[in-house]
Amino acid sequence: MAETNKGRSEEEVARAFVNHYYHLFDNDRFSLFTLYSSTSLLTFEGQKIYGVEDIFNKLKQLPFDQCRHLISTVDSQPSSMAGGCGGILVFVSGSIQLHGEDHPLRFSQTFHLVPLPQGSFFVQNEMFRLNYG
Amino acid sequence: MAETNKGRSEEEVARAFVNHYYHLFDNDRFSLFTLYSSTSLLTFEGQKIYGVEDIFNKLKQLPFDQCRHLISTVDSQPSSMAGGCGGILVFVSGSIQLHGEDHPLRFSQTFHLVPLPQGSFFVQNEMFRLNYG
Repeated sequence: MAETNKGRSEEEVARAFVNHYYHLFDNDRFSLFTLYSSTSLLTFEGQKIYGVEDIFNKLKQLPFDQCRHLISTVDSQPSSMAGGCGGILVFVSGSIQLHGEDHPLRFSQTFHLVPLPQGSFFVQNEMFRLNYG
Repeated sequence: MAETNKGRSEEEVARAFVNHYYHLFDNDRFSLFTLYSSTSLLTFEGQKIYGVEDIFNKLKQLPFDQCRHLISTVDSQPSSMAGGCGGILVFVSGSIQLHGEDHPLRFSQTFHLVPLPQGSFFVQNEMFRLNYG
């Protein structure tokens, strides 16, 4: 992905990632596969999906075409102590408006971004849940 | 903490941790400090708190005495690839009933559990948000 960690705080990386991810999701969903790797894990409403290929297939099979995310909160933390794996945890809450539906759905989503040697990040972990009232 | 990772899947560790954490929170909240270390990070409703001492102080200052958590979903994943830091991500949704309040509040919470050499885990990362409808 296009993000780089050079000279940026984890909050800046997290915010840039969130903007990038939901912009792609709402406008060019199939490009999301560029954010994953062969080791990535997605848990979507309790279903575990392993690796970029199966994650891409899951994105293709979602039962809606157009949607719009509205982000309420973005929290982030470094995922490790000194000497650890150097990742960033991103915790998002918001709502998703599906095309043709009257009411938006509340959701929460957690990402674990892991750095690549050249300074960019990929999504190693992702967990998504709708929040039913 | 009392959990050990010997021979257990990350789902079993996550489920045992969730049961332990919310049981302590609802019955013996001040014992929660045993789950943290000096490197732990808590983001509570957007406020960042660093280290076990300040986390303990935050727990003491919460503006309610009695509460009861009802857990709706627990998702978990290993937080790293082979050779990584060997942690477990835990993503919880549920509701919290405060004593004297009519309606429970929806919440989402993410934990990153990191193993200690002797096989137990501590909470390296935690992020908590109420989910407002």
